[in-house]
Amino acid sequence: MTFRLNHLAIVVEDIPQALAFWRDALGLPLGKMERNADEEVEIAFLPLESGEIELIAPTNSTSGVAKYLAKRGAGMHHVCLEVPDLEAAMQRLRGHGVELINDVPKINAEGVRYCFVHPKSAFGVLVELYELPRSS
Amino acid sequence: MTFRLNHLAIVVEDIPQALAFWRDALGLPLGKMERNADEEVEIAFLPLESGEIELIAPTNSTSGVAKYLAKRGAGMHHVCLEVPDLEAAMQRLRGHGVELINDVPKINAEGVRYCFVHPKSAFGVLVELYELPRSS
Repeated sequence: MTFRLNHLAIVVEDIPQALAFWRDALGLPLGKMERNADEEVEIAFLPLESGEIELIAPTNSTSGVAKYLAKRGAGMHHVCLEVPDLEAAMQRLRGHGVELINDVPKINAEGVRYCFVHPKSAFGVLVELYELPRSS
Repeated sequence: MTFRLNHLAIVVEDIPQALAFWRDALGLPLGKMERNADEEVEIAFLPLESGEIELIAPTNSTSGVAKYLAKRGAGMHHVCLEVPDLEAAMQRLRGHGVELINDVPKINAEGVRYCFVHPKSAFGVLVELYELPRSS
């Protein structure tokens, strides 16, 4: 079974500045822009042929993303892969001693169930899993 | 025009340890393994539905990747996108004041022309571009 990349999230200080590179200089199309009040971020979605790049900027200085940015600087933040059955994936991960950030699935604004794997179990990478049916 | 992700490269200390997470616990298939003498790294290729994840481990302590690992620790290292015309992409980037790491295209072992964008021009992200014809 192969996995589909849902998105690669990149934390930036300022969305318009980052779009000057990603959209204007490199030429990626800009899909939608969105403000996520729960996570206190603004997001620009840049669709790829499969999956997308998300540019994420904090909207205040106290959010998790703002703290990450202050500590680590701008850069790649997490990678999100799609799985057909999230609880089965979580159970399999736990069975291999992998630490999850949330032990029960969360649900985002679009109704997608998701979880995060702790980067210490994924060799420095923050991995997000979305439960989405196979597109192929 | 949309872009295709070619690969997301993740630097790790040890490929077998990292495979215990990415392949065994998460379930990604392992494609091929390769030793790249020029870059002094070992690479494990984990194909996604489109593009792939590459786990990269230094084979000595003096390579660029080894120094990166010593300084930053394991984690996402670069993202590679495909463009149909590399020189046109490079010219467009330069026109927007973007700094490239190599000013003329390099050619890898598979004959693919590529270049790297400096992360300071890409808001902390090391971006690689491969010249490959559009697959769709």
